[in-house]
Amino acid sequence: MLSKSQIKLITSLKQKKYRQQHGFFVVEGVKTIKELLQSNLELQKLYTTESFNIDAKDEVIISNSDLKRISFLTTPNKAMAIFKIPEPKPIDKSGLIVALDAIRDPGNLGTIIRLCDWFGVKELICSKETADCFNPKVIQATMGSIIRVNISYVDLVTFLKGSETPIFGAFMEGENVYHKTLPKKGILVMGNEANGVSKEVEAVITENISIPRFGDLQATESLNVATATAVLLSEFRRG
Amino acid sequence: MLSKSQIKLITSLKQKKYRQQHGFFVVEGVKTIKELLQSNLELQKLYTTESFNIDAKDEVIISNSDLKRISFLTTPNKAMAIFKIPEPKPIDKSGLIVALDAIRDPGNLGTIIRLCDWFGVKELICSKETADCFNPKVIQATMGSIIRVNISYVDLVTFLKGSETPIFGAFMEGENVYHKTLPKKGILVMGNEANGVSKEVEAVITENISIPRFGDLQATESLNVATATAVLLSEFRRG
Repeated sequence: MLSKSQIKLITSLKQKKYRQQHGFFVVEGVKTIKELLQSNLELQKLYTTESFNIDAKDEVIISNSDLKRISFLTTPNKAMAIFKIPEPKPIDKSGLIVALDAIRDPGNLGTIIRLCDWFGVKELICSKETADCFNPKVIQATMGSIIRVNISYVDLVTFLKGSETPIFGAFMEGENVYHKTLPKKGILVMGNEANGVSKEVEAVITENISIPRFGDLQATESLNVATATAVLLSEFRRG
Repeated sequence: MLSKSQIKLITSLKQKKYRQQHGFFVVEGVKTIKELLQSNLELQKLYTTESFNIDAKDEVIISNSDLKRISFLTTPNKAMAIFKIPEPKPIDKSGLIVALDAIRDPGNLGTIIRLCDWFGVKELICSKETADCFNPKVIQATMGSIIRVNISYVDLVTFLKGSETPIFGAFMEGENVYHKTLPKKGILVMGNEANGVSKEVEAVITENISIPRFGDLQATESLNVATATAVLLSEFRRG
């Protein structure tokens, strides 16, 4: 059984304000929870319809209808876990870094975290305007990748100004990325879904790159930011 | 003002059954509607809060609250249009073709249609189990690309068996795509989100390809199907 105060705490974690106040975030789905349980993350409480065979004090067996009451999903997935938000780790500047300039959509952010994990990018830098990586929709889209990528929220212009490596920015009009020799070390900046890279950030970018369009030239739409990140990270890694 | 029968017709178009019965689909958002009005698609009716200055018999000016009643979006976007589902066009086999084996998620399908448009893929072949491309969520994700890509629903195994070009399939274990020389003409098969390419389809694939993983080898997650399609189409086109 769930107490009223437990339900209140859990449902409050949908909002960033309360995640920051309590220092907790929510994960749903057996597979992702199991992956996170094996990481360094600290479990606060697991609410599940079937036992995970972990320390009994950490686990509360609940009914399907209780799960439905606390779940953030339309179709709840057997279990929900509350983890402590980890302390931020220092940024390791020795490799390829992805920096996000005001990515607002949680699904895009989650997909980009998963791409960083796949392409071995250990550091993801987010401007303060970027969606919160502990938003349940982001966690859902990362499929567990969140534990393998170090995510830092910074003043992006200040961070980039302090960089000693080349800074690549993705633009509609930039140098054809297929013709560039890309370094192992550097920063790739991806801009906002609707407005692209902001003027202030553009001013500190050293190389403007672009994915050429092969389709009908009359069409003006850009690529979605997550699929553009996929293509660019592939270009950085393919060698 | 909207009549009861108009509201009933429009809201029924959320379901594939009624889209097929009536032969109509729904588009929301001023920008996408304007793009579709310039295409060969036949408008059935435009419901809008502000006039588009088109033929008065095609347009119904409605209130924001009426729009809210018929919209499929949480935040309706000024206008909704009903278009006729176009007649299927014959498949042009002269270029690069993308084939989808049971892609279920409308967002993924919409993103893949947009990618086809960007990378100049004119033909998208879908197995019968793939999401319906006239689903409002798909249309939303395509951002107008739906008019530039010819989408056909076929028995995928039969279609592939009849192909005279090489058939590439995306697998977790396949040949490193960065080491392959890819042709201008061929078929790229992408598999279902959870289960990948089905056994029956795999049997007719001539080349298994794979995007190498650069991150932590212990992690077993695959790339999302839309981001994997982005990387593979980029590889086919970059030359």
